[in-house]
Amino acid sequence: MNIQMIEAAATRASGITRRTPLLSAQALDAIAGRRVLVKPECLQHTGSFKFRGAWSALTALPEDQRAKGVIAFSSGNHAQGVALAAQKLGVPAVILMPSDAPAAKIDGTRSYGAEVVLYDRGRESREKIGAEIAAARDLTLVRPYDDPQVIAGQGTCGLEIAEQATETGVTEADVLICCGGGGLTAGIALALEARAPGLRPRPAEPAGFDDTARSLLSGQRETNAKEAGGLCDAILTPSPGEITFPINARLCGPGIVVTDDEVLQAMALAARHLKVIAEPGGAAALAAALFHGTEIAGDTVICTISGGNLDPDLLIRALSG
Amino acid sequence: MNIQMIEAAATRASGITRRTPLLSAQALDAIAGRRVLVKPECLQHTGSFKFRGAWSALTALPEDQRAKGVIAFSSGNHAQGVALAAQKLGVPAVILMPSDAPAAKIDGTRSYGAEVVLYDRGRESREKIGAEIAAARDLTLVRPYDDPQVIAGQGTCGLEIAEQATETGVTEADVLICCGGGGLTAGIALALEARAPGLRPRPAEPAGFDDTARSLLSGQRETNAKEAGGLCDAILTPSPGEITFPINARLCGPGIVVTDDEVLQAMALAARHLKVIAEPGGAAALAAALFHGTEIAGDTVICTISGGNLDPDLLIRALSG
Repeated sequence: MNIQMIEAAATRASGITRRTPLLSAQALDAIAGRRVLVKPECLQHTGSFKFRGAWSALTALPEDQRAKGVIAFSSGNHAQGVALAAQKLGVPAVILMPSDAPAAKIDGTRSYGAEVVLYDRGRESREKIGAEIAAARDLTLVRPYDDPQVIAGQGTCGLEIAEQATETGVTEADVLICCGGGGLTAGIALALEARAPGLRPRPAEPAGFDDTARSLLSGQRETNAKEAGGLCDAILTPSPGEITFPINARLCGPGIVVTDDEVLQAMALAARHLKVIAEPGGAAALAAALFHGTEIAGDTVICTISGGNLDPDLLIRALSG
Repeated sequence: MNIQMIEAAATRASGITRRTPLLSAQALDAIAGRRVLVKPECLQHTGSFKFRGAWSALTALPEDQRAKGVIAFSSGNHAQGVALAAQKLGVPAVILMPSDAPAAKIDGTRSYGAEVVLYDRGRESREKIGAEIAAARDLTLVRPYDDPQVIAGQGTCGLEIAEQATETGVTEADVLICCGGGGLTAGIALALEARAPGLRPRPAEPAGFDDTARSLLSGQRETNAKEAGGLCDAILTPSPGEITFPINARLCGPGIVVTDDEVLQAMALAARHLKVIAEPGGAAALAAALFHGTEIAGDTVICTISGGNLDPDLLIRALSG
């Protein structure tokens, strides 16, 4: 993994992925006690950054292999990213999704033309089902984070952050990144290392699913006690990725761990002051920026809103809080 | 009014106003029956396009006059735009707001450091109160739409639409614009005339407050029966502006009139598929794009979401619909 791979992914994505703006609001600065700059990847195609990695991975495949189709597992955002990338490239996509994924994500994935196969998260192995379908139909598996081309695609978000921070006159700041398997974190970290070394990437995770924060402390890949059941469905992974973790261990500052309550408040504040919809997992970094100021250095903090796909009831719950 | 004034406003706004992206979602295309491109000015500073016009007007004032301060009347979006522009320029601002304006807008205006003076919309004349305060303190009145420099500032949104449509390969389309007094419509219309003549500006208004649509038909400035009470608080004006109407009469296609129900649906769809918050008046053009397809020409339609400032209860109502 290197910056050239990220730049190549950016070239392949030119005119396709959306350059999301950098947002801010004085009311958020007042809460955080420092300037807060927000990268709203909820505005990316499919409503999350995952389209970047999916597009990168699919466009990096040899054409004959890609034409046979792709398969992915996902609770929803990677699913939609792969589905739309496949649709735009005119190739088939099969997506394995847990049957308890948010309806908005299942519907969204189907709407991009993918074949959705549901499985029972508690009783069935998605790896086994996926391997069987992939073998039977000669499909290429697109992993959600442990794939160098996926990480390179997510890194294009980091290139934009580096450029936009520079345009805004910010050369030193913590960059808080919503972290599940660590693909977005690793991609951004690599981009910042090369293009904005004064910006320090740091993962933000929900309590109970802080495997990356603990792994950064211990120096090895730690595991969460639970595998599901948290509010932040998009970023609940059992442990840091094999490829992502060494990158993040080398480049990231300490992780920040937020509560579900802080996440709900951050969702409401994003709606009120930034006019964007964050899903719970997408609001973890903003929650860290707003409510964990004592753990953050400097007069400016940058954070991602990594996605905005959620069922309306949950948004109403956050807004009613 | 000419394109040079808009370009000069864009130069003065460089690095200050936000270049909002052009968003889209396949689900909206499917509802509309054509491609829908959305310019989300709810992501502009202060949550609406009004900051563009306010910044343009204040930066066009002679420095000694500006230093004495400015005054504006507004139900909320122009208020916040002028307040933030004044704050950034370090000059005082007094804003007259109706006491029944959304709390979010009154709070927002105060948060930008303006002195807010509330008046009773039914019993008091804002013109009279405003003239008294302006005379007593030697403040410059910044009108919400009938001011060439305000229109020039709103026109910077049209320059961006022209550029972004070109980048997207769109050269012919209707451009639907949420229309109150007609400042945004006139500014965009002038910018498109010069930079993207195949794009046709058209105002979108709520039923009962369709003064511009009726005025475009009759060729003279018509008045609404009611002055307030509609859902779309941001775009309820008694009649088209004196300066804006001749521009819009020359350049706009027919107006489109939407129902409050269509507006609420458009708000919910913007949240669900674009991940942005539209206030009712800000969703009128999207409602027109989605639900008035038979009145629209071409395979692509562009529409503004002109603002996103609203009380959470109303957003919850739209999401629950």
